[in-house]
Amino acid sequence: MSDALRKIIEETQANFRAEPANALATFESKSELQEGFHSEVGLRDHRLTVDEPAELGGTDKGPNPVELVLAALGTCQEITYRAYAAAMGIPLEGVSVTVEGDIDLRGFFAVADDVRPGYGAMRATVELTSSAGEEQLNQLRDMVNSHCPVLDIVSKPVPVSLELRINEPVAA
Amino acid sequence: MSDALRKIIEETQANFRAEPANALATFESKSELQEGFHSEVGLRDHRLTVDEPAELGGTDKGPNPVELVLAALGTCQEITYRAYAAAMGIPLEGVSVTVEGDIDLRGFFAVADDVRPGYGAMRATVELTSSAGEEQLNQLRDMVNSHCPVLDIVSKPVPVSLELRINEPVAA
Repeated sequence: MSDALRKIIEETQANFRAEPANALATFESKSELQEGFHSEVGLRDHRLTVDEPAELGGTDKGPNPVELVLAALGTCQEITYRAYAAAMGIPLEGVSVTVEGDIDLRGFFAVADDVRPGYGAMRATVELTSSAGEEQLNQLRDMVNSHCPVLDIVSKPVPVSLELRINEPVAA
Repeated sequence: MSDALRKIIEETQANFRAEPANALATFESKSELQEGFHSEVGLRDHRLTVDEPAELGGTDKGPNPVELVLAALGTCQEITYRAYAAAMGIPLEGVSVTVEGDIDLRGFFAVADDVRPGYGAMRATVELTSSAGEEQLNQLRDMVNSHCPVLDIVSKPVPVSLELRINEPVAA
């Protein structure tokens, strides 16, 4: 596995060095709100069901949006650990991640203007199973944390543009 | 629906004004990497399967982490539109959102140090079906965009702390 992965990574790096335009990718999500807070999402051929728990006014058909952000960070850390362990030739038998996010819901509910609506803090605990020494694993951690896409997205600002389109309801 | 929702929102606001500590919530994700880049995630009682597409070295068993971020933003916008439309008494028959994220994969693959690993830009197109006038819907949009948790998380920095734990592999 890790030799095959190392080969894929090295070939991809060579490709992107030779042709930087090949590295430009755009991902897309399309979703539509159903009853209440339940939304159905399409990500290429994959489907996701999102909802809010009952305490937040939903019917709990799936995780909520802020939970998806935690899942995104945890899995991105895992994937980035596996990729860089392969690239760096460091043995890595397992990775699991727990991510917590603290939110003060007064922000979302417009009860306090000085409280942000999103997470005030996030904490990730990364558990590696590896026979490598501590120094090597600290080098791995530093490479992962400087190249993990979702860590970058949540910890640094991303410019977001929002366009609103309005349709008239079809007469019954 | 929207009257019931308005009542839930008003009661929640009154609760959080009276007892700010009730507004503090912590969400959690637990995930474990399987073969390759496939990860299984638990979010309360909900399960998610995450993977990378074949072009990125995975087996495409589910969306990838950066796609989850797009889904999180799209569904958070939808939910926030429905909640604030109810709270503001604005008719809203439907909401759907398309979110795109541009990523230069030279960042993740460590091919260019000046390229961030996460999204360089995100674009959301929000489509509302409503009989309300443009002025009301612009007021709604402004309330949504200043209170949408995931928009806040991606567009502004969140402090993230990361802890690494290391387990020795169990001898075979």
